[in-house]
Amino acid sequence: MSFDKLQEAIIAKKNATVAGLDPKPEYVPAHILKECYARYGETLQGAAEAIYQFNCGLMDALWDIVPAVKPQSAYYERLGWRGMEVMERTIRYAHEKGLYVIADIKRGDIGSTAEAYSDGWLGATKVGEQECPVFEADCVTLNGYMGADSVNPFLNTCKERDKSVFILVKTSNPGSGELQNVSAGEGDTVYGLMADLIEKWGAGTKGKYGYTMAGAVAGATHPDELKQIRARMPHTFLLVPGYGAQGGTAEDVQYAFQKDGHGAIVNASRSIMCAWKKTGKDGADYQEAARNAAIAMRDDIARFTTIG
Amino acid sequence: MSFDKLQEAIIAKKNATVAGLDPKPEYVPAHILKECYARYGETLQGAAEAIYQFNCGLMDALWDIVPAVKPQSAYYERLGWRGMEVMERTIRYAHEKGLYVIADIKRGDIGSTAEAYSDGWLGATKVGEQECPVFEADCVTLNGYMGADSVNPFLNTCKERDKSVFILVKTSNPGSGELQNVSAGEGDTVYGLMADLIEKWGAGTKGKYGYTMAGAVAGATHPDELKQIRARMPHTFLLVPGYGAQGGTAEDVQYAFQKDGHGAIVNASRSIMCAWKKTGKDGADYQEAARNAAIAMRDDIARFTTIG
Repeated sequence: MSFDKLQEAIIAKKNATVAGLDPKPEYVPAHILKECYARYGETLQGAAEAIYQFNCGLMDALWDIVPAVKPQSAYYERLGWRGMEVMERTIRYAHEKGLYVIADIKRGDIGSTAEAYSDGWLGATKVGEQECPVFEADCVTLNGYMGADSVNPFLNTCKERDKSVFILVKTSNPGSGELQNVSAGEGDTVYGLMADLIEKWGAGTKGKYGYTMAGAVAGATHPDELKQIRARMPHTFLLVPGYGAQGGTAEDVQYAFQKDGHGAIVNASRSIMCAWKKTGKDGADYQEAARNAAIAMRDDIARFTTIG
Repeated sequence: MSFDKLQEAIIAKKNATVAGLDPKPEYVPAHILKECYARYGETLQGAAEAIYQFNCGLMDALWDIVPAVKPQSAYYERLGWRGMEVMERTIRYAHEKGLYVIADIKRGDIGSTAEAYSDGWLGATKVGEQECPVFEADCVTLNGYMGADSVNPFLNTCKERDKSVFILVKTSNPGSGELQNVSAGEGDTVYGLMADLIEKWGAGTKGKYGYTMAGAVAGATHPDELKQIRARMPHTFLLVPGYGAQGGTAEDVQYAFQKDGHGAIVNASRSIMCAWKKTGKDGADYQEAARNAAIAMRDDIARFTTIG
């Protein structure tokens, strides 16, 4: 139920981190790009194939280290349908490797439109008499600005299929406070009210570790707020972006976890995908570099958080 | 510049409405479904092809009546990459018919991720030395919860390529007030603050009709709030969902317009796409039915708003 599957994968690997798969062509080593552009030209197809090969190579190097991967939809959409086809294949490959998949899509829409998104990303789409699975992620990220109408259709799919969602509370970007930190309600903030809404929306769906199906995104770059969010959302599993390239440290992200080390997962994307850029070997060693970076991140966070 | 292109199309057709292309297979007449399922099976491909034929048939019937179409990404994503391929073709076909295209994607993400979305939907994606156009919409919808960091990358593309965006302010769903109407700032609401942010983000990009590149989504189902939003956002072009099936009337939507009848466009999706369901002819007349519904909607709104 709910986030049990993810929590168990974290415990099994003693690693509460997720590798973001946000592949821009400039993150892909030259030898992969060269081969794909030679075969398909400098085209969207060529870039999509290069990204797929890169993703698979990364997952081959990381599958026994990290419990989960988080492909970011934007980097696939920017390659059009060919990118989306690679998104589908990437998720299938991740599942073959036993990885939990968080599709970072940050969708938010209402009624039958939210159902359509939920069918596509978590459930299955009815075509005539057939049930057709589509992206089949384990979890998606959502934006709750439109209220429960935009979240409930996803939670219905989560209940049917043992999936879960992360809803934006307090994001990691420098300007996140522009709306999120405005005073609202009675002595509160917009993100504080969103935190309460998420606890409410998830109510009644707790799994055996005590977390509902409605998780929350809370950035590592605001550690004081992360601490408050953790206290205020005791039944909410947290996805924490902002570690590494964006400036969040292991010391900062420790506040996302409960005392038993449960209840959160920390994302890093560029620091793993682009680790090869720091070894001076032109990307031939991108798998080893990514694996070393993932191990270093795991151990860095383990300095402050022991997973019970 | 900015929304000039859309405003001019509205004036030329004397019609401030946009036809939503949110095609679920159950909206597609049986003769189209039957042919596509016979050819491709009851598969995602079969459904995607049926939707493409339906979209083209609708646009053939509507192109000289409506200035714009608004495909909703969810209904394409739920068919996976095959749906996204049809989204690309649908946008191309709309452009062949001279229609302005609002891609209803409600994306919201930050930094290089927002750039990736913007490249994919409004701009072009660099692959090696090539600039590859992808979806090539004229306009997208956005969710501004993450602040200017999530909007500016799109506005940069808008400036380069004469495109525009609509950002959610006050949505048409029954539960939209759950966050949007909470008291915030000084005697204000969350959506009120968002309204001010959108005016700020768009500042300096006004076109000849006085509207910036940063439009706003304001639902027809809350006419009092629509009136306030119109007054508060004098430089903001409005996209108004919620007319028709969701309960908004022509009397309600009149408040979205300025005194000269400019500055807004009203969406209807199901009432046009599914108009054939009311004629008792099993969908053989779906084009005529859609055209009649679009004309009726145009004339209904013209009772209250004369486009100057």
